[in-house]
Amino acid sequence: MVFEFLQLIGGFILASGWIPQIMKIVKTKSVKDLSVNSFWLVFLGIALMETYAIHLVVQGVGVAFLITNSLSLILIGLILIFIYLFKDNKSKDTKPQ
Amino acid sequence: MVFEFLQLIGGFILASGWIPQIMKIVKTKSVKDLSVNSFWLVFLGIALMETYAIHLVVQGVGVAFLITNSLSLILIGLILIFIYLFKDNKSKDTKPQ
Repeated sequence: MVFEFLQLIGGFILASGWIPQIMKIVKTKSVKDLSVNSFWLVFLGIALMETYAIHLVVQGVGVAFLITNSLSLILIGLILIFIYLFKDNKSKDTKPQ
Repeated sequence: MVFEFLQLIGGFILASGWIPQIMKIVKTKSVKDLSVNSFWLVFLGIALMETYAIHLVVQGVGVAFLITNSLSLILIGLILIFIYLFKDNKSKDTKPQ
């Protein structure tokens, strides 16, 4: 029981862990150091795991895993959108004042 | 069976997905846009899930999950080390030539 609980907490921390990265991008409008390939691979990996999560819920188990995995998918998807939105931006401190 | 396979492939893609980000950091020596808070939270989340993964293996199941989760833990850990190593670097294109 303890380990399932740790897995659940870990899943929530892992999923919500991307919020500070999103806040940083919104603040700086700079994404130059982020690897778009990495975020696409991570997005693809999580999307494949989402099929398993849905499969588990259809069988009546694993709702928490579906919630945390879906949260990760949404937040990584948001980061990908920001990477394309801001990819031509020079980061704030290099812009002429 | 199919969904377990998709989960496994998803886990490997998710874990190895961080390799392009590591290569980008090694090339540019610039980590300014990466949120160290995010990578700490993601590291913590994966570490908690690692306890569950080890628990599963002790019970004779889930070896693949332990492998992919450990790979994620190592790669995210490496990114954290790089963030501290290069955090004072200006990215290459802003360095005086």
